[in-house]
Amino acid sequence: MASQDKPNANMLWGGRFTGGLDPLMVQYNESIYFDKVLYKQDILGSIAFARANAKSGIISQAEFAKLEEGLRAVEAEWAAGKFQIVPGVDEDIHTANERRLGEIIGKDVAGKLHTGRSRNEQIATDMRMWLRDELRTIEKYLCDFLGVIAARAEREIDVIMPGYTHLQRAQPIRWSHWMLSYGFAFASDLERLRELIKRVNRSALGCGALAGNPFGIDREMMAKELGFDSLLWNSMGGVADRDFVAETLQWGSMLMQHVSRWAEDLIIYSTGEFGFVRLADAYSTGSSLMPQKKNPDSLELLRGKSGRAFGHMAGFMMTLKGLPSTYNKDLQESVEPMLDHVKTVGDSIQIANGVLATLAIQPEKMKASLDPFMLATDLADYLVRKGVPFRETHHISGRCVALSEQTGTPMNELTFEQLKSIDARFDKDIAEVFNYEKSVEMRSAKGGTSKSSVLEQIKVLKGMVA
Amino acid sequence: MASQDKPNANMLWGGRFTGGLDPLMVQYNESIYFDKVLYKQDILGSIAFARANAKSGIISQAEFAKLEEGLRAVEAEWAAGKFQIVPGVDEDIHTANERRLGEIIGKDVAGKLHTGRSRNEQIATDMRMWLRDELRTIEKYLCDFLGVIAARAEREIDVIMPGYTHLQRAQPIRWSHWMLSYGFAFASDLERLRELIKRVNRSALGCGALAGNPFGIDREMMAKELGFDSLLWNSMGGVADRDFVAETLQWGSMLMQHVSRWAEDLIIYSTGEFGFVRLADAYSTGSSLMPQKKNPDSLELLRGKSGRAFGHMAGFMMTLKGLPSTYNKDLQESVEPMLDHVKTVGDSIQIANGVLATLAIQPEKMKASLDPFMLATDLADYLVRKGVPFRETHHISGRCVALSEQTGTPMNELTFEQLKSIDARFDKDIAEVFNYEKSVEMRSAKGGTSKSSVLEQIKVLKGMVA
Amino acid sequence: MASQDKPNANMLWGGRFTGGLDPLMVQYNESIYFDKVLYKQDILGSIAFARANAKSGIISQAEFAKLEEGLRAVEAEWAAGKFQIVPGVDEDIHTANERRLGEIIGKDVAGKLHTGRSRNEQIATDMRMWLRDELRTIEKYLCDFLGVIAARAEREIDVIMPGYTHLQRAQPIRWSHWMLSYGFAFASDLERLRELIKRVNRSALGCGALAGNPFGIDREMMAKELGFDSLLWNSMGGVADRDFVAETLQWGSMLMQHVSRWAEDLIIYSTGEFGFVRLADAYSTGSSLMPQKKNPDSLELLRGKSGRAFGHMAGFMMTLKGLPSTYNKDLQESVEPMLDHVKTVGDSIQIANGVLATLAIQPEKMKASLDPFMLATDLADYLVRKGVPFRETHHISGRCVALSEQTGTPMNELTFEQLKSIDARFDKDIAEVFNYEKSVEMRSAKGGTSKSSVLEQIKVLKGMVA
Amino acid sequence: MASQDKPNANMLWGGRFTGGLDPLMVQYNESIYFDKVLYKQDILGSIAFARANAKSGIISQAEFAKLEEGLRAVEAEWAAGKFQIVPGVDEDIHTANERRLGEIIGKDVAGKLHTGRSRNEQIATDMRMWLRDELRTIEKYLCDFLGVIAARAEREIDVIMPGYTHLQRAQPIRWSHWMLSYGFAFASDLERLRELIKRVNRSALGCGALAGNPFGIDREMMAKELGFDSLLWNSMGGVADRDFVAETLQWGSMLMQHVSRWAEDLIIYSTGEFGFVRLADAYSTGSSLMPQKKNPDSLELLRGKSGRAFGHMAGFMMTLKGLPSTYNKDLQESVEPMLDHVKTVGDSIQIANGVLATLAIQPEKMKASLDPFMLATDLADYLVRKGVPFRETHHISGRCVALSEQTGTPMNELTFEQLKSIDARFDKDIAEVFNYEKSVEMRSAKGGTSKSSVLEQIKVLKGMVA
Repeated sequence: MASQDKPNANMLWGGRFTGGLDPLMVQYNESIYFDKVLYKQDILGSIAFARANAKSGIISQAEFAKLEEGLRAVEAEWAAGKFQIVPGVDEDIHTANERRLGEIIGKDVAGKLHTGRSRNEQIATDMRMWLRDELRTIEKYLCDFLGVIAARAEREIDVIMPGYTHLQRAQPIRWSHWMLSYGFAFASDLERLRELIKRVNRSALGCGALAGNPFGIDREMMAKELGFDSLLWNSMGGVADRDFVAETLQWGSMLMQHVSRWAEDLIIYSTGEFGFVRLADAYSTGSSLMPQKKNPDSLELLRGKSGRAFGHMAGFMMTLKGLPSTYNKDLQESVEPMLDHVKTVGDSIQIANGVLATLAIQPEKMKASLDPFMLATDLADYLVRKGVPFRETHHISGRCVALSEQTGTPMNELTFEQLKSIDARFDKDIAEVFNYEKSVEMRSAKGGTSKSSVLEQIKVLKGMVA
Repeated sequence: MASQDKPNANMLWGGRFTGGLDPLMVQYNESIYFDKVLYKQDILGSIAFARANAKSGIISQAEFAKLEEGLRAVEAEWAAGKFQIVPGVDEDIHTANERRLGEIIGKDVAGKLHTGRSRNEQIATDMRMWLRDELRTIEKYLCDFLGVIAARAEREIDVIMPGYTHLQRAQPIRWSHWMLSYGFAFASDLERLRELIKRVNRSALGCGALAGNPFGIDREMMAKELGFDSLLWNSMGGVADRDFVAETLQWGSMLMQHVSRWAEDLIIYSTGEFGFVRLADAYSTGSSLMPQKKNPDSLELLRGKSGRAFGHMAGFMMTLKGLPSTYNKDLQESVEPMLDHVKTVGDSIQIANGVLATLAIQPEKMKASLDPFMLATDLADYLVRKGVPFRETHHISGRCVALSEQTGTPMNELTFEQLKSIDARFDKDIAEVFNYEKSVEMRSAKGGTSKSSVLEQIKVLKGMVA
Repeated sequence: MASQDKPNANMLWGGRFTGGLDPLMVQYNESIYFDKVLYKQDILGSIAFARANAKSGIISQAEFAKLEEGLRAVEAEWAAGKFQIVPGVDEDIHTANERRLGEIIGKDVAGKLHTGRSRNEQIATDMRMWLRDELRTIEKYLCDFLGVIAARAEREIDVIMPGYTHLQRAQPIRWSHWMLSYGFAFASDLERLRELIKRVNRSALGCGALAGNPFGIDREMMAKELGFDSLLWNSMGGVADRDFVAETLQWGSMLMQHVSRWAEDLIIYSTGEFGFVRLADAYSTGSSLMPQKKNPDSLELLRGKSGRAFGHMAGFMMTLKGLPSTYNKDLQESVEPMLDHVKTVGDSIQIANGVLATLAIQPEKMKASLDPFMLATDLADYLVRKGVPFRETHHISGRCVALSEQTGTPMNELTFEQLKSIDARFDKDIAEVFNYEKSVEMRSAKGGTSKSSVLEQIKVLKGMVA
Repeated sequence: MASQDKPNANMLWGGRFTGGLDPLMVQYNESIYFDKVLYKQDILGSIAFARANAKSGIISQAEFAKLEEGLRAVEAEWAAGKFQIVPGVDEDIHTANERRLGEIIGKDVAGKLHTGRSRNEQIATDMRMWLRDELRTIEKYLCDFLGVIAARAEREIDVIMPGYTHLQRAQPIRWSHWMLSYGFAFASDLERLRELIKRVNRSALGCGALAGNPFGIDREMMAKELGFDSLLWNSMGGVADRDFVAETLQWGSMLMQHVSRWAEDLIIYSTGEFGFVRLADAYSTGSSLMPQKKNPDSLELLRGKSGRAFGHMAGFMMTLKGLPSTYNKDLQESVEPMLDHVKTVGDSIQIANGVLATLAIQPEKMKASLDPFMLATDLADYLVRKGVPFRETHHISGRCVALSEQTGTPMNELTFEQLKSIDARFDKDIAEVFNYEKSVEMRSAKGGTSKSSVLEQIKVLKGMVA
C-alpha cells in the first residue's frame, strides 16, 4: 500500500475505533468463509493460467510443473478437509491458496503464479465455473421433475376435476391438464436456463485488473482448458460484469414464482374443504398443540422460499445499481446471494418433485366438487350450434342458472319443460350436455382438455426436455 | 351474473358504501383507460378469430365478412381518434370494441363474434402482439446505440484516459475501451432481447377461458395470421401466463442497470474535478438559482429511471406471487407496468444514444489526470520480464511508489540511481516504462487495451448487432 | 447556462440525434404533466416565501401585495381549469406558475418572487404539503374501515367458524375474532401513519439550492403559515431528503400486505368449496364466457395492487440508492410513485371497506365446515385438567383421532367405551368436550376467542382509532 | 399425526424420491441450525410460561420449580457451548430445549411444560425478545455514530469545501455542514428506531396456536416478567404477525440507503481527482496487481451492503404477500433475514463510525477545488440587495460567467470595468463578494452554512440523541 494513514492519536472523536487495526473491519471485509466453496475452481484456474504463462514463456515449463504439482497438493488438502485457514491472513480463497502454495513449493516459484494476473479476473473466473456446473445440475433436477409431471399426466389422464378461474369453479378439466399447465411453465424455465448457462460460461481469465494482460497470454487456450464456451471480449467488462449472477437470480426468481403458484394450488387442494390431494407424510408435519393436524409444510416452505429467492435478486440488483465501471468491492456482495440462491432453487425443485411423485389424489373428492353450473357454457354452446348468437346464448344460459338457484334445483335436474320455457330452441338432446366427461372431450382444439389434446401436450413437453 | 346480492338495507355497518353501486369500484375495476392502447391488436385478433370460426363452420362466411367489415370500421374510428368510450360501460377494450361493433353491424351478427372465446385469451393475445412489436422497435433502438458506440470507438481510438478500479486511478486505458466495456453489456441485452421476443411471440388465441375451444378452432391458422411464431400448448397456462411480461420487466431492469452504471461514470467524468466530458446543451439544464450551473440532467434521469424500471419488475413479481392458477383479476395489474416499462426503456435507450452521439470529450483533461503511479504495474512487469517473481516485483514497485511519495517526486522523475538503490536489477531502459501509450499497447492479449485488441472488439461487437 | 455546447456538425456518429434540440429529451425531462397536481401548494408556498421576504425587507410590502394578488389569480385559473400550460416552456409547476405570474403582474415584480429561493426547496415544500394533506385523508379512510370492523365484530360476535393454521382446520373461532385479527394489523398501520405524518410535515422552505438562505429569511414564520410542524434543520438535507416519500411507500406497502392477506382469506372463503361469505354484486363481476360465474374481482384487485404498491417502494428505493448528497435530477422520479401510491392505497382502503360493509356471511356454511377433529386439543386439555402431562394427552388425543379415522366414525361419535379403551382416565363428562361453542368460550385469556375476550379486543381497537 | 400416507410402492413416477423419508426434506424443514441463536429467549419464555401455569394452578408449584431448575440447566449447557443438537430430531429450538429438559428432569414433569402452549406463540415470543435486545444495541451504535458526527462537526467547523448539486460545484459550504446533512438523516433513523422497538416489544405469549389459552393464563404477568411493554391483543394476529420483522427490515433498508449515499460521497471525495479525504489504512486495502492502489473497500462494502439489507426486506415482503391468516410455515423464512439484517446493519453502523472517526481530511484540496463561479449566486444576490429583481440579476450574473469563460479570466479577476460594462449597477464593493468565507457566512438563516447556523444544528442534533 502506498502510504500509512494511521489515525492521529490526538484525533479522538470519541468514535468506536481509532487505533491502527479494526477487528470488525477484518471480518466485514474477508470473504474466505464463504468463497472457500470455490477452492477447486480457483485451483483449476490457476493451473490453466500458469500453463498459459509457460506457453508464452514468461515462466518456464519447469516452474509450471512445480506450480501445478503444488496446486494439486493444495486441492487435495481442501478435498480431504485438511486445509487450515489462517484467520485474519487468508482474506479470500485466492490469497489462501497462494499462501499455502508458497509454503509447499517455496515462495520463489509460487511468487510467479500471479504474474500478470489480478484477483479481479480470478474471482470472476471462479464464480462462472462454479455456477456453470451448479446450473447444469439444476438443469438435471428440472428435467427429472418434468419427467414426473409427464409420467403422472399420462397415467392419470382420466381423472376429471373442477377447473377454476378467480378460484371460482369454472369448467371441468383433466387433472393431467392442471399438471401440464405448470409443466409448460417449468419447461420455459428450462429453455431459459439453457440460454443462461451459455452466458454464464464465458471466460474472464486474462482480463487482468481491468486493462488486459501484458504478456500476450493465450486466453482461448485457457478458456478451452477450463470448459468455457467463449471469451468475454472487453477486459473492463470482463472483471466488472456480474450480470451472470444477476441473470441467474432473475431466472431463479421466475422459476420460484412458478413454484409459489403451484404450491398455492396444492395447498388449497389439500384443505379439508377441497380435499383433492393428500401429501405423503414425508412432506407434511404435525402440530405441537393440535393432535389432528397434518400440515403441508413442504408446500408452504416452497411458497415461502419464493420470497427468499426474490430477495437475493432484488438485493443484488440494488447492489449493482449505479456502480462505477470495473471492479468495486461492492461486487463481493454477489457471492453469498449466488450460493444461497443456487441451493434454494436446487433444493426446491427436488422437494417439489418429491411432493408430486408421492402425492395421493382423491378423484372422488374432485368429482364431488364438480357442479352442474360448470356446464353453463356447454349449455350456451349447445344453442350456438343451433345458430343462436353467442351473446344471446350466454344470457339464456344465465337465465337457466338463475332458475336453478331460485328453485333450488341443480341445473342438470331442471325439467325439459323448464328449459323450454326459457328458450324454445332447446331440444330433448339438451340432456346430453350435462356430462362432465363429454364437456372435457369437447375442448379438442390444440391445448384443450380432450384426451387427444392432452396427449399431444405430453408429447410436446417430453420433446422440450429431451 | 347468477344472483343479486344487494346489501341488506338494514345491514349498515357505518361503512363507506352500502348501496347497489359503488362508483369508485367501477373506476378501480375498469381498464379501458389504459388498455385502449391495444385497440388494433384487439381488432386484428377478433378478425383472425372470426375467420377461424368461419372456417370451422360455426359462423358463416357471410357473417365473417360482415364482422370483418365492422371491425375495420371500429379500427378506423380509433385510428382517427373518433372512438367514443362510454364511461362505466366500456370497462375494457374488448367490451368497447364489441359494443361499438354491435352498433355498426347490428347485435345479431356482432353477438357471434365472441363464440367460444373468452376475454382471458383475448387480453393475453392482445398484449403479446403489442409487446412483440414494441420490443422489435426497441431492438432497433438498441442496435442504433451499439452502432454509435462502435463508430465512436473506432474514430477516437487514440484517446487515452485513466482507467479506474474502486474509482481509484488504476491503469491507463483507451477511451474507446471504456465505451466498448458498456457496448458488450448492451450487446448482451440485445442477445437476451432476441430470446425474449421469441417467448413473447406465442399465441394464446383459442385457449378459451381456461379449458380450450369447443368448436375445433384452427389455432395454428390464427397464429400464422397474427404473426405469432408458435402456440402456447396448454390452455390453462395460455390464459394465466404473464411470464412474458415478467421476463420483459426483468430484461428491461437489467438493461437499465447497465444504463445506470454508464450514466454514473459519465456524471463523474463530467464533474469539474474530472472534466473528461462535456454534455451537449440539449442534454443539460441550468439552475434556477445558480447562474453558472450546467447539470447533467439527462444522465441523472437515466440513472434514476433504472429505479422506475426495477419497480415495475419488483411490483409485478409481487403481484404474481402465490396466485392460484389460470386467470385471476390480479393479472390486470400486468398491463400498466408493461406500458410504462416499454416507454421508459425505449426512451432511455434513445436518450442515451443522443447523449453519447453529442458528447464532447476533453482529451487533454483525461491526459492531465493520468498519474505516473498508474504505471507502477508496468514497473513491476518490467522486472518480471527479467525473471523476478511477480510477488517480489510488486513489493519493489511498491517501494518506488513510497519513495516517490516521501520525496514528493513524481515516480517517472525518480533518478535512475534512486530506482537502482531500490533494486539493482533496474537497467537504463526502465525509463521507457514511463509511457502511457506504451503501457496501453502492452496489453495486447484479446480483450485488452492495445489498438489491435480494441479493433478486434469493435469487429466482434458489430458482428453481434448484425 | 454557462456555455453553448452544440454538437459539432462534423461529429456525426450516426446517432439518433445530433442537432441542437431533442424533442424527446424535452419530454423525458419535463415534469409539468404530473407535478401540476401540486399547483396549490406551490402557490401557497410562494406567498409565504414572498411574505417572509417582505418581512426581512428584501422586497417591499407593496411588492408583496402585488405578488400575492397575482399568485391568487394564477391559483384561480388552475382551480377553474383555465390554466394554459405552454408546452416545451413550462417544464415544471414552479416555472409555469412564475411564467404566468409575470404575464399577470409584470416581470419586474414577478422577477422578485424567486429572490434567494431555489426550485430545490420549492419542490420539497410542495410535495410535503400535498402529501401531508393526502395522508390525513387516508387516516380518515383507515379510521372508517376500522370502525366497520369493530361494528361488525360486535354485531356478529355469536357466529362461529373454523380457524385455520397452514390453511388446515385447526380450532373453532368466532368470525369476529377473524375480523379483529386484521383489525389490529390495520390499527398498527394507523399508529405508524400518525408517526409518518409527523415526519412528512417538516418544512424545507428557506433551504435554498443547498446552502441556505442569504437574506435572513424567517423559516419558522413560513413553516407556521404553511401548517408545518417543524423545520428540517440542515439545508443540504432539506433539499435532498426524499425519505418522507420512501417512508410513505414503505408504510403503504406494509398496509397493502395486510390487505393482500385479508383479501386472500376472503377469496378462499368465497369459493364454492368453502362458501363462508358472498360478496355484494357491486364488488363482483361476471364472466364473458361462463354465465354462472361470480368472481371476487374487488378482492383480487386489492390483492394484486399490493404488488403495485410494493413496486413503487422498491423502485424508488432503487432510485435513491447510492445518490450523491443534495439534489440530483434522479429525485424527480419521486413524484410519480408518490402520486400513484397515495391513490392506490387510498382507493384500496375504501374498496376494502365497501367490500366488508356489504359482505354477506353464511353462518350455516361455516358451521358445516367445523369438524370434530378441531376439538382434539380440547380432548387433550380435558386430560390435562386431570393432571396428565400435556405431552401424554397430546398422544392420547392423537390415538382418538386415529381411531376415528380408522373406523370412519366422527370423533364426537366414538363411544365412551372406545375412548376409555384408549385411556382409562376419560370420564363420562368427556362428552361435554365436543361442543364448538364451549371450546371457543374456554379460551378466555386475554386475546382469546371467548366472548369476553373478543369484547375486550373491540374496546381496545376502538381506543386505538379515537 | 392423524394418518400414515406412505407413498404406494407401485406408484413410482420415476421421481426423485418415493420412499417414506426424504433426508433433503428434513433439512429443508428444520430450523435448529439458525434458530438456536434464540435459545436463551426460548428458555426465559418457558420459565415465564410455566410460572404463569403454576399461578393458574394447571401445574403445581413443585412442578414449576423443577421445570425452572431444569430449564436453567439447559440454558447453562447452551451458554457453555455444550448443548448437543440431535440431528434429525431437534428440528427447532423449542423441540431441542424440551427434549433436553425431559432428559434432565424426566418426561413426566417436562411433559407439562407445553401445557396450553403452541410453538406458534413460542417462536413469535422468542423472536420479539431477541430482536428487541438487538435493536437496543443498534440504538447505542447509532447514538455513538451521531456523537462522532457532532464532535467532528464542532471541531472542524472552519473547514470550507465545495457544495455540489447534480455533482456539479454549486456553492461553498462548511465540511461540518456536509457531515450534519447526514447526521440529521441518521437522527431520523434513530427516531424511527425508537418507535419500532415499541412495536417489536409486544408479547405474543398466551396466544396458543391461534385461538388463545384455555387455562386462564395471566398474559400480563408473563409479559412483565419478559420485559415486554404491552400485549398483542388478538391471538390469531399474535401468532401470525411478522410485521415486527418486516418493519425492522424496512427500517434497516432505509438506514442503509443513507449509508449508501454517505459512502458514495466519501468514495468520490477520496478519488485522486477530488482528494478531499483520505481513509485510514485500517479501512482501505491494496491491490494484488497494482502496487500504488489504496482502495476504499470499507466504503464500497457499506454501499454494497445497502443492497443486501434491501434484499432481506424485499424478499421477506414477498414471502408475506397473500398468505392466509395465522401461522403458515412460510413464516419460518422470517428468521434468517432477521438475523442477517441485524448483523449487517449493526456492523455497518460501527464500520461507518470507524471510518469517520479515523478519516483524514485535506482542507487544502477542498480549498483548491473551490471555483469563483461558485460565487455567481452571491454576485446576483449583490444586485438583489440593490433592488434589481432576482430574475434579472440571475441573467446578469450569467453574463459575467460567460465573459469569464470567453476571456479565460477567473470570474473574481474580471476588472471592475468589465463588470461595469455588463451592468452599470455594480459598485466597487463588488470585490467583497468574491470571498468563500463570506459567502458561507451570508447564509445565516436557520439550517444554513453560517457558523451560528451550524452550531445551532449541532445543538439540535445532540438533543435528538440524548
